[in-house]
Amino acid sequence: MSVVDLNSDLGEGFGRWRLGDDEAMLRVVSSANVACGFHAGDPATIRRTVRVAVQRGVAIGAHVGYRDLAGFGRRRMDVPSEELQADVAYQVGALAGLAAAEGGRVSYVKPHGALYNTAAVDERVAADVAAAVADVDPSLVMLGLPCSRALDAASAAGLATAAEAFADRAYEADGTLVPRTRPGAVLHDPDEVARRMLRLATEGVVEAVDGSLVPVRADSICVHGDTPDAVAMAERVRAVLTAAGVRVAPFAGAGARG
Amino acid sequence: MSVVDLNSDLGEGFGRWRLGDDEAMLRVVSSANVACGFHAGDPATIRRTVRVAVQRGVAIGAHVGYRDLAGFGRRRMDVPSEELQADVAYQVGALAGLAAAEGGRVSYVKPHGALYNTAAVDERVAADVAAAVADVDPSLVMLGLPCSRALDAASAAGLATAAEAFADRAYEADGTLVPRTRPGAVLHDPDEVARRMLRLATEGVVEAVDGSLVPVRADSICVHGDTPDAVAMAERVRAVLTAAGVRVAPFAGAGARG
Amino acid sequence: MSVVDLNSDLGEGFGRWRLGDDEAMLRVVSSANVACGFHAGDPATIRRTVRVAVQRGVAIGAHVGYRDLAGFGRRRMDVPSEELQADVAYQVGALAGLAAAEGGRVSYVKPHGALYNTAAVDERVAADVAAAVADVDPSLVMLGLPCSRALDAASAAGLATAAEAFADRAYEADGTLVPRTRPGAVLHDPDEVARRMLRLATEGVVEAVDGSLVPVRADSICVHGDTPDAVAMAERVRAVLTAAGVRVAPFAGAGARG
Amino acid sequence: MSVVDLNSDLGEGFGRWRLGDDEAMLRVVSSANVACGFHAGDPATIRRTVRVAVQRGVAIGAHVGYRDLAGFGRRRMDVPSEELQADVAYQVGALAGLAAAEGGRVSYVKPHGALYNTAAVDERVAADVAAAVADVDPSLVMLGLPCSRALDAASAAGLATAAEAFADRAYEADGTLVPRTRPGAVLHDPDEVARRMLRLATEGVVEAVDGSLVPVRADSICVHGDTPDAVAMAERVRAVLTAAGVRVAPFAGAGARG
Repeated sequence: MSVVDLNSDLGEGFGRWRLGDDEAMLRVVSSANVACGFHAGDPATIRRTVRVAVQRGVAIGAHVGYRDLAGFGRRRMDVPSEELQADVAYQVGALAGLAAAEGGRVSYVKPHGALYNTAAVDERVAADVAAAVADVDPSLVMLGLPCSRALDAASAAGLATAAEAFADRAYEADGTLVPRTRPGAVLHDPDEVARRMLRLATEGVVEAVDGSLVPVRADSICVHGDTPDAVAMAERVRAVLTAAGVRVAPFAGAGARG
Repeated sequence: MSVVDLNSDLGEGFGRWRLGDDEAMLRVVSSANVACGFHAGDPATIRRTVRVAVQRGVAIGAHVGYRDLAGFGRRRMDVPSEELQADVAYQVGALAGLAAAEGGRVSYVKPHGALYNTAAVDERVAADVAAAVADVDPSLVMLGLPCSRALDAASAAGLATAAEAFADRAYEADGTLVPRTRPGAVLHDPDEVARRMLRLATEGVVEAVDGSLVPVRADSICVHGDTPDAVAMAERVRAVLTAAGVRVAPFAGAGARG
Repeated sequence: MSVVDLNSDLGEGFGRWRLGDDEAMLRVVSSANVACGFHAGDPATIRRTVRVAVQRGVAIGAHVGYRDLAGFGRRRMDVPSEELQADVAYQVGALAGLAAAEGGRVSYVKPHGALYNTAAVDERVAADVAAAVADVDPSLVMLGLPCSRALDAASAAGLATAAEAFADRAYEADGTLVPRTRPGAVLHDPDEVARRMLRLATEGVVEAVDGSLVPVRADSICVHGDTPDAVAMAERVRAVLTAAGVRVAPFAGAGARG
Repeated sequence: MSVVDLNSDLGEGFGRWRLGDDEAMLRVVSSANVACGFHAGDPATIRRTVRVAVQRGVAIGAHVGYRDLAGFGRRRMDVPSEELQADVAYQVGALAGLAAAEGGRVSYVKPHGALYNTAAVDERVAADVAAAVADVDPSLVMLGLPCSRALDAASAAGLATAAEAFADRAYEADGTLVPRTRPGAVLHDPDEVARRMLRLATEGVVEAVDGSLVPVRADSICVHGDTPDAVAMAERVRAVLTAAGVRVAPFAGAGARG
């Protein structure tokens, strides 16, 4: 039987501000990329999200980002290695503290936003993130784009890695994502998205924009949850997967301790 | 042979801004109260301080404070329990992440500034801090004022406690500190301060402002390090203690891991 | 013909996070209390709100708060006078810069959240806010609770004042608000709320919880806009007022420049 | 008689943290680049600096930077135009509010750190800064590197410009600065620095690293003040200039209000 993980970005509120419906998404996904306070996520919001993740057996990942609340971590920043490594270790630790307080633990790390994009292509930044994670806890898994610098650097640092596909994104024939600036880059039909992800989970391929079938490594599928439509699409993906006998389960240890 | 701990506030820079001479103080103290980023301490600064603490066998404590960089954590804030508990767990975890990255660990917690003062007298705040610490790691020790709500609540939460005296402060006959607003509240003569702390370490008493000898529980002595004069006073205290055969050692496990 | 102002809290998003529907509310109110970045409001969000306010002739007020994004300015903080005065002047100036960039100007100041509540009863805090506003621009009007320390201090500092009523709040027989902790403190029926505000605007009285009619000074009526229901209620209040011939207009100069 | 301006970065403390000796530097310079809170400068610190600047007739400039306290505004950030323009307008306004509260006004703008470096070479960023300044107050002068995109864009936006030289920096034969990474890029001898600046002020040329004399437009000379040595060098520059009959005076209106 096939197994695949579903991951989503959670804990992205801050104080008075809410974003997405974490309770709903924690019924859908098997892995939660939880904001760690630098681009989003105040401690109380994070802790509430972690609590539910632990209750539901959802794996907890540290969604580490640039220190940029105003830009939601989406603005590229030139952060020197010493600072970036310390920032990553700080965030992983902070989330681990809140997870421990709820009887859970952090089992993986996924860079967020501009840090995700930069670590995918920039060797130095990828190495900084990997080094920081390995320094804090070498049993953590790095989640990222297949064939990215981020995963290469993680492997080189001795970390296990997990590759992710994006449920609602179109793919080029070479297995890369169609840039968001291009028409058709983002898919909107839940049924189509669900069918594509089922094929990916069972056959390991995705249909590219030119109609060819391209093999994509996907230990996990990233689904969005920041709008009601996005939640509905995520639910549809899960429903189609499980109806076809694909088990949805974390690629790394679930959030509960021990 | 007597043993006493010396503790000081460290890691209190932030980015471009430095405060105190952490390298110098880590040759003097046996316990480092390390800022966790809410009132002071960016991750890179914290990590540098923690690295030296681990190298020197100095115990690492989480100096948790209110989220108030502009006020250095010295302004009282009414933080609801859920938020305060999460803020404390977050800070302890963040420091633990950086400590782990340097091969060390956090062994105690000391509230900072306005949170220290409030937790000393306010039952709810004391209980929130204690609960958060116990939730994250029940083996952590709480450092605070003797006979304070902070230590009572920590004990009630199942935590070990350590009481501290202040090297450069005058005491009332009842064992409390003379308020800073009163003349003579702060002592400036390094020799006098060192003599008083030697007596405290060996006889368990301190001479109060009325000349009486008052018993004070002191597992640790707090010394300052944010000015050259303060460092010199701290060095004097340590020199006088060790010359008299008092061993200076952490009350909790030193910073190095396991 | 009667005239009354309608005010609402706007510009309360921050970066990625939205709060309320400023476009909708700027079709309802005549005065916009615009967040200034300390409790909410990043500069781009603020500027968008100010732009629409200028276009619609809505007066712009500086909604000054404590420096507490995580707590949305709702947590009481003990901020010393020098810091509080500078914080207020900074916020008023920042909003004035953005208003000027859009061809508008700031015409009044309203403290937000915990600062509003504290300035209403604490003489020192009220005096600090008033002094800061008078120092920056003595032509600014202070908006606040009638008979509050905030308005007294503003008058003493030579500022004009405007008193506000709360559309959806119950009143005691002495003209004060029923505390939120009491049942019935908040009204939910748009028609009832609109009728009460019409009576206030035309007769100067509001029906208290004991049935008595209590005179309330109200140069402005505060309406909420952070939920769709709140917007609908605000629209109802405006519709009932204008249908009865009450003109809705700013108590201070509208946002467009001189 | 020659006239030249001396400018320095001031107001760069934050809360508990001090940086440089603003009182000393305000006796040396004629223009103060005052931090506006994004990379440094809490409102109380800024206001104290502005107060002394007004007292001494020193012109006040808004030293606008990226929103990056942890990185002191020295880390390059990709900030979209709408956000950057609003950030600049916010900062200029905030400083103007504090200046007004002290009876002064802002007369020029100088980008700080990474924003300075980026605006010098990046047309879009230069245009954003210029547009924001022109939108807030078209009478403001833009201070920057001669022949930079920043000054070109300012001129194009209708702003007056002022070019600055750096007292302690070596120059290439083409009038650009020797990069800091090259040996000899920074000069340390106060007498040599003072002599060079006197020649610049009187003859309009500076001796380049290859010995040639290169004409440099310098309406202002930037001197540092963040260390005792830097203050001493700045004092030496001023002393040598005034002894030779060069008048030190602001290029833009001094800080006191019209």
